[in-house]
Amino acid sequence: MAYFENVNNIQFEGKESKNSLAFKYYNPKEVVGGKTMEEHLRFGVSYWHTFTGDGGDPFGKGTMIRPWDRYSDMDLAKARVEASFEFYEKLNVPFFCFHDTDVAPEGSNLKETYENLDTITAMMKDYMKTSKTKLLWNTANAFTHPRFVHGAATSCNADVFAYAAAKVKKGLEIAKDLGADNYVFWGGREGYETLLNTDLQLELDNLARFYHMAVDYAKEIGYTGQFLIEPKPKEPTTHQYDFDVATAYAFLQKYNLQDHFKFNIEANHATLAGHTFEHELRMARINGMLGSVDANQGDTLLGWDTDEFPTDLYSTTLAMYEILKNGGLGKGGLNFDAKVRRGSFEPEDLFYAHVAGMDSFAIGLKVAHQLIQDRVLDSFVEERYQSFTEGIGRDIVEGKASFHTLEAYALQNDRIKNRSGRTELLKAKINQYLLESFAKVTV
Amino acid sequence: MAYFENVNNIQFEGKESKNSLAFKYYNPKEVVGGKTMEEHLRFGVSYWHTFTGDGGDPFGKGTMIRPWDRYSDMDLAKARVEASFEFYEKLNVPFFCFHDTDVAPEGSNLKETYENLDTITAMMKDYMKTSKTKLLWNTANAFTHPRFVHGAATSCNADVFAYAAAKVKKGLEIAKDLGADNYVFWGGREGYETLLNTDLQLELDNLARFYHMAVDYAKEIGYTGQFLIEPKPKEPTTHQYDFDVATAYAFLQKYNLQDHFKFNIEANHATLAGHTFEHELRMARINGMLGSVDANQGDTLLGWDTDEFPTDLYSTTLAMYEILKNGGLGKGGLNFDAKVRRGSFEPEDLFYAHVAGMDSFAIGLKVAHQLIQDRVLDSFVEERYQSFTEGIGRDIVEGKASFHTLEAYALQNDRIKNRSGRTELLKAKINQYLLESFAKVTV
Amino acid sequence: MAYFENVNNIQFEGKESKNSLAFKYYNPKEVVGGKTMEEHLRFGVSYWHTFTGDGGDPFGKGTMIRPWDRYSDMDLAKARVEASFEFYEKLNVPFFCFHDTDVAPEGSNLKETYENLDTITAMMKDYMKTSKTKLLWNTANAFTHPRFVHGAATSCNADVFAYAAAKVKKGLEIAKDLGADNYVFWGGREGYETLLNTDLQLELDNLARFYHMAVDYAKEIGYTGQFLIEPKPKEPTTHQYDFDVATAYAFLQKYNLQDHFKFNIEANHATLAGHTFEHELRMARINGMLGSVDANQGDTLLGWDTDEFPTDLYSTTLAMYEILKNGGLGKGGLNFDAKVRRGSFEPEDLFYAHVAGMDSFAIGLKVAHQLIQDRVLDSFVEERYQSFTEGIGRDIVEGKASFHTLEAYALQNDRIKNRSGRTELLKAKINQYLLESFAKVTV
Amino acid sequence: MAYFENVNNIQFEGKESKNSLAFKYYNPKEVVGGKTMEEHLRFGVSYWHTFTGDGGDPFGKGTMIRPWDRYSDMDLAKARVEASFEFYEKLNVPFFCFHDTDVAPEGSNLKETYENLDTITAMMKDYMKTSKTKLLWNTANAFTHPRFVHGAATSCNADVFAYAAAKVKKGLEIAKDLGADNYVFWGGREGYETLLNTDLQLELDNLARFYHMAVDYAKEIGYTGQFLIEPKPKEPTTHQYDFDVATAYAFLQKYNLQDHFKFNIEANHATLAGHTFEHELRMARINGMLGSVDANQGDTLLGWDTDEFPTDLYSTTLAMYEILKNGGLGKGGLNFDAKVRRGSFEPEDLFYAHVAGMDSFAIGLKVAHQLIQDRVLDSFVEERYQSFTEGIGRDIVEGKASFHTLEAYALQNDRIKNRSGRTELLKAKINQYLLESFAKVTV
Repeated sequence: MAYFENVNNIQFEGKESKNSLAFKYYNPKEVVGGKTMEEHLRFGVSYWHTFTGDGGDPFGKGTMIRPWDRYSDMDLAKARVEASFEFYEKLNVPFFCFHDTDVAPEGSNLKETYENLDTITAMMKDYMKTSKTKLLWNTANAFTHPRFVHGAATSCNADVFAYAAAKVKKGLEIAKDLGADNYVFWGGREGYETLLNTDLQLELDNLARFYHMAVDYAKEIGYTGQFLIEPKPKEPTTHQYDFDVATAYAFLQKYNLQDHFKFNIEANHATLAGHTFEHELRMARINGMLGSVDANQGDTLLGWDTDEFPTDLYSTTLAMYEILKNGGLGKGGLNFDAKVRRGSFEPEDLFYAHVAGMDSFAIGLKVAHQLIQDRVLDSFVEERYQSFTEGIGRDIVEGKASFHTLEAYALQNDRIKNRSGRTELLKAKINQYLLESFAKVTV
Repeated sequence: MAYFENVNNIQFEGKESKNSLAFKYYNPKEVVGGKTMEEHLRFGVSYWHTFTGDGGDPFGKGTMIRPWDRYSDMDLAKARVEASFEFYEKLNVPFFCFHDTDVAPEGSNLKETYENLDTITAMMKDYMKTSKTKLLWNTANAFTHPRFVHGAATSCNADVFAYAAAKVKKGLEIAKDLGADNYVFWGGREGYETLLNTDLQLELDNLARFYHMAVDYAKEIGYTGQFLIEPKPKEPTTHQYDFDVATAYAFLQKYNLQDHFKFNIEANHATLAGHTFEHELRMARINGMLGSVDANQGDTLLGWDTDEFPTDLYSTTLAMYEILKNGGLGKGGLNFDAKVRRGSFEPEDLFYAHVAGMDSFAIGLKVAHQLIQDRVLDSFVEERYQSFTEGIGRDIVEGKASFHTLEAYALQNDRIKNRSGRTELLKAKINQYLLESFAKVTV
Repeated sequence: MAYFENVNNIQFEGKESKNSLAFKYYNPKEVVGGKTMEEHLRFGVSYWHTFTGDGGDPFGKGTMIRPWDRYSDMDLAKARVEASFEFYEKLNVPFFCFHDTDVAPEGSNLKETYENLDTITAMMKDYMKTSKTKLLWNTANAFTHPRFVHGAATSCNADVFAYAAAKVKKGLEIAKDLGADNYVFWGGREGYETLLNTDLQLELDNLARFYHMAVDYAKEIGYTGQFLIEPKPKEPTTHQYDFDVATAYAFLQKYNLQDHFKFNIEANHATLAGHTFEHELRMARINGMLGSVDANQGDTLLGWDTDEFPTDLYSTTLAMYEILKNGGLGKGGLNFDAKVRRGSFEPEDLFYAHVAGMDSFAIGLKVAHQLIQDRVLDSFVEERYQSFTEGIGRDIVEGKASFHTLEAYALQNDRIKNRSGRTELLKAKINQYLLESFAKVTV
Repeated sequence: MAYFENVNNIQFEGKESKNSLAFKYYNPKEVVGGKTMEEHLRFGVSYWHTFTGDGGDPFGKGTMIRPWDRYSDMDLAKARVEASFEFYEKLNVPFFCFHDTDVAPEGSNLKETYENLDTITAMMKDYMKTSKTKLLWNTANAFTHPRFVHGAATSCNADVFAYAAAKVKKGLEIAKDLGADNYVFWGGREGYETLLNTDLQLELDNLARFYHMAVDYAKEIGYTGQFLIEPKPKEPTTHQYDFDVATAYAFLQKYNLQDHFKFNIEANHATLAGHTFEHELRMARINGMLGSVDANQGDTLLGWDTDEFPTDLYSTTLAMYEILKNGGLGKGGLNFDAKVRRGSFEPEDLFYAHVAGMDSFAIGLKVAHQLIQDRVLDSFVEERYQSFTEGIGRDIVEGKASFHTLEAYALQNDRIKNRSGRTELLKAKINQYLLESFAKVTV
């Protein structure tokens, strides 16, 4: 097991090491707010981007140079497992995530596909006995194969619905077997190309039927992981049904599924939907639906899912702010659903990129913690909404007001005085905390 | 009453009249599918864009030349009422819509504002006795005045909540008095500038409280019009709470308001949210929430609400398709929430623009009707989803399938055959119907 | 030669044929404005999308079912040539276009690649002896292979620059040999991923050096086709150097290349750059740089290059308007740089899609011709700018005015009267001409 | 002179002062790389946003509470001058910028407008005798008044062209009189609403004529300030002629104006055009056209010009990187073309916002300086392009290569080895420098 033999100088104490792979900010055992960094930051490695992805894009073939390139078929699949656990260990990450097709090739029929999966997941299970790295979540890829061209659970073809069901059934069994904390649904083809040929109602009804069957089957086999839906607005489809948190929440409520699902929120999907990452996290949080995070970032000047490693410290800070306010992610984690750029094709880049992402979230954690500890935003917000804690405001909140009482009040009180929202001051505060949190973090 | 005295040659029989104001396609009495065009197309004029708007934009002062410019204050308000009914009559439109502040100036206090409103709405009521034009909907403007700088029902200031409540109370009384078919909520400031200073949960809870009070008050006074929420994703706020149909539907369900509201869907708001107009209409339709339409169009290469008059025949056709499939809009209508461009500042442009919009929807109506009558899309869709009417597909739809039966089926049946979705052919069909529907419309 | 044997009912006289492949609007021999449709509309088929593309996308494997799928390597390359000429003949298109790698597989080294190309282009040349279909343009693919990961002429690696030069050299020889009317440069990787690692100045200087060498070599071998640059703003790169017409024109002027190049303008690239298709055509036209057209369309609600077949009649009309105003495209043509949707994977869809595109441009041609013949826009524009034909306006245009004379004039004349721009009326006129041009086209 | 009497605790030594107006990072006398911060950072205050703007937006009236609100007409104009110099002094900013209409109201005719301007600029001149604050640039507002509805130098109306010329003539005289370092052209209405009614060629020709006249007049009166064009892609117009740096550079070259102009680059205009701020700066820099900067930031999730105060430290760092690489901005400066948010309506917010912006650029300066001093990017780039300093690469750069020599080389050398571009590592480096530059800045 020596796929990354050149990489052996990773350090965790923030020691200076120019251009090396040393972490500068992430220190797993450092305590922040009563918990260690590794308890706060349940990092996961995405199997698909890191071990399966080849750097191809719509205009170019794969560029990635990978130590396991010399293998093929099941040998390749096995080599990837070996390499993956070496990688997890060197990076000291607690979790990984995968789609079925990332880890094992499809066979010539479904039965053979199952067998391939069984072989690989058995191997994984074996590794997991001695590794600290666990399965954050797995999922079924129901979007790559041509059979899913018109969708999976929302296909116009009932045979495809059945096939997708079989895959998810198997996926739930694997989740149980490998002890996955969560099971994810990302509906890459659950959407439409054009409304002209689409029965929107039937497709959404079928999607709900599918989810209900999944809930039933998990219950049947005793799988207690958290179900997660990962919203994305579009791409590959023109319109994707789980557009954003609010859209998926509407769907779950309509079909009475809201108690069985939470959301897996991805930064780049948020921005593609026209939202900030923190908006989607907040929306999920206040509805009790924040499950897990796909930690990456997009390029808001580009219109597609770039899945970059997260290095924007504003984004990691505001994300960690929501997560800390949520009391953490529970069973969820921070899965790096991120790929090295096509031009970063050397194996070392996989380490550089993960270190960059882990360091960035470590910084975000510290800054967010300090912001909360100093009640920077909390006290501002508290004061700002203070009018709802007394008088007419309290009546409103307590349900004692009506249009009658409010009108009477307004007729006597129409010289209203507002106070500045202080956006610029607050943004300056964020900068100040970003630059100065390291010195004063209180444990 | 002669604000538009130069405009007297409007014709309704599609007669050739180069550069004139004659309608070429809209003929109110022409029957399409058993109803007249004017029954299908319940056009409304937006008071704000047509009689109040001055053509100003963030970089420029108003440009509009209006016959009522010589008046001011309440005289101006009255002149606008006079001009508006002349305009409705000349255009032969059945409806108009307004915000309170469009029609009457605010007084020096709320009581005076009420009095101004009373004066003007009494005048309108008088006009409506002899006019065929009715009130499609009214609403309260809770976004223009500085007091609403931080929101209305979602303001951080309880005094503002109360003031907004008073305005809506008055609005509902006016709605009842003038027989408005609907009452609209557009939350222009119900959103946030930055999450840094925002208590998202309290704001959304308050918004729900506000809506419940409105429902209660309407019931109390016996106002039976339809409540409508008009989604918009952003602008003027950074994020608006009623982002799109799905978001607002999630909110309504969460707060148990879904039976009291439908949606007023605007084309330009749909595209700003990243959706097509027809998507938003379809989403509302399949959830039984399609109430009314703000008929305009945006420029998808621009990032703000351009509120253009609707002239894109693809858009009017696909909108009318959804509306016909909905069995019409019921109490709703097609309100031209559209403004002439800043450079179209002559009074005649108001007519040109409305004629352009009405003709465009007349064409859309005919093309959509013909598409439905010939079952062009229906038969394609029917055949496409045929697998759900028999065998395993029917089991799925009827709730008889489970992951067990589906897996068993899939294991025997993994050579799946899909059929082409024929997007290109269907788009060519739409073009064909667009170009050829006029000759063959069957009544 | 029978790859498309099921397709044999294509008709060209607009005869009614429900769901058939008959053209409804394109009739090659029909005369419009003194020239036949096929003289106006120099349609080209894109080899890559039609014969090489497999329907894969970033989230899915290829879906396309193609009659030549049973072959591989050079046999596949030959089968595609056979199929392509059958396709051109059945569609009756006058042109095709290709990248080197579309038609012949790369060999194990450059010499072998050359040999593969020689074999295939010889075969093509042979077909072209008896076919009416000619080569509109060819180009070198310098973006798919991993060697071009950092660019081709703008690579940071001189070896790659040299390799790209060799490919273009070969491409020019092929262009000459096959009689290509044009030679195209699309810089798919000529851009940057991040400025952090980019020497922008050196890369642009090198690009200019590359173009100058190409110009020199064409002169040397006597290739007299038109050089074309195809602008695109981004994708696959974060920023592409030939962002849009204006950007590429700035570059050509700076490096004194403007006399040797024109532009190949793609609709979808225009919209990705934030422009309308007609804007880019107009910009090229007024600078004498309109060379050829990649006829497709994008989805402005999506942020990537969807390369859809052109069916938007507004777009085809306004494009043909610019082209007619340009006196046609000269050596250029209308290349369908368009792919059937991933879900339109049956061979018939290739025909449906091309017919849809050709019909759409035939309609655009007729409508644009009629608009020009009736001087609908011309007379409006003429009148609008009339002030520049007399008095102070003529002085300005003739270079006789200065800030002194203009100020003197303005001081006497500051009650300026503008006239409406009539945007809404003009849009209604376009609709009218769209719906009614068929009856009254005058030859 | 006591408009901001409450603000008297501004400090410049980075002293801790919770919620106060103290600068934390900007210290004018601190030396960075041999020059003081105030020499590097030639900050300017925008008169329009700070003293004239009222916080209105397309959906709302002004919200700003300003100490000079009690005045009107010329008294208001004078009060603003007084307040402005108090503001400059308290903030210790070296520059301000204005449009003619910001500082003086238009009179009932042009002559009166001139007189108003004369009165106010005389007053300013008087203040400037004792103030350290100078005029960075002035400009003529040729977009707000209705007369400019169809453009100014590109109006379809020659009278408007003349009027605009008179305004710019006056503007140049003021620039000379007040010693403005630059004179700016922002073509807010120099663009089109729709191509349907636009003579694009005449409009662009006229724009060039206008610029030539301006150049001539400046020469005539001996005004030696730098002419600047400020690119913006759209808004208020649908398409603006000075779309971005490249577009404007193409225009300047075509009309032989490139030696007379540089660019004033605005961050928010860059992102609206689909570019990063640093891209536009780099494009201008490598063409010797970087003149000045409008220091603000946009919200890339919003589609309009938000003109926020710059607080994004990535943006200020990468901007300062380009500026330092340019050897500074020469006569140019960093004008805060930025407005406090509509909700930040208290006078104090003007200080908070400017302090936030100045601190952010001070940080950017230090980080960029350290990056340059440590040659972090320079050495990476140098190594990356090393192949162009020897062998075939040097031949290319020195003009000794041709397609013949390159092909010969490539045929022998087609096993090309590229190296990783290390995007992720470089982004991590930027974070590291951002967080750690303060300790180690070397003077």
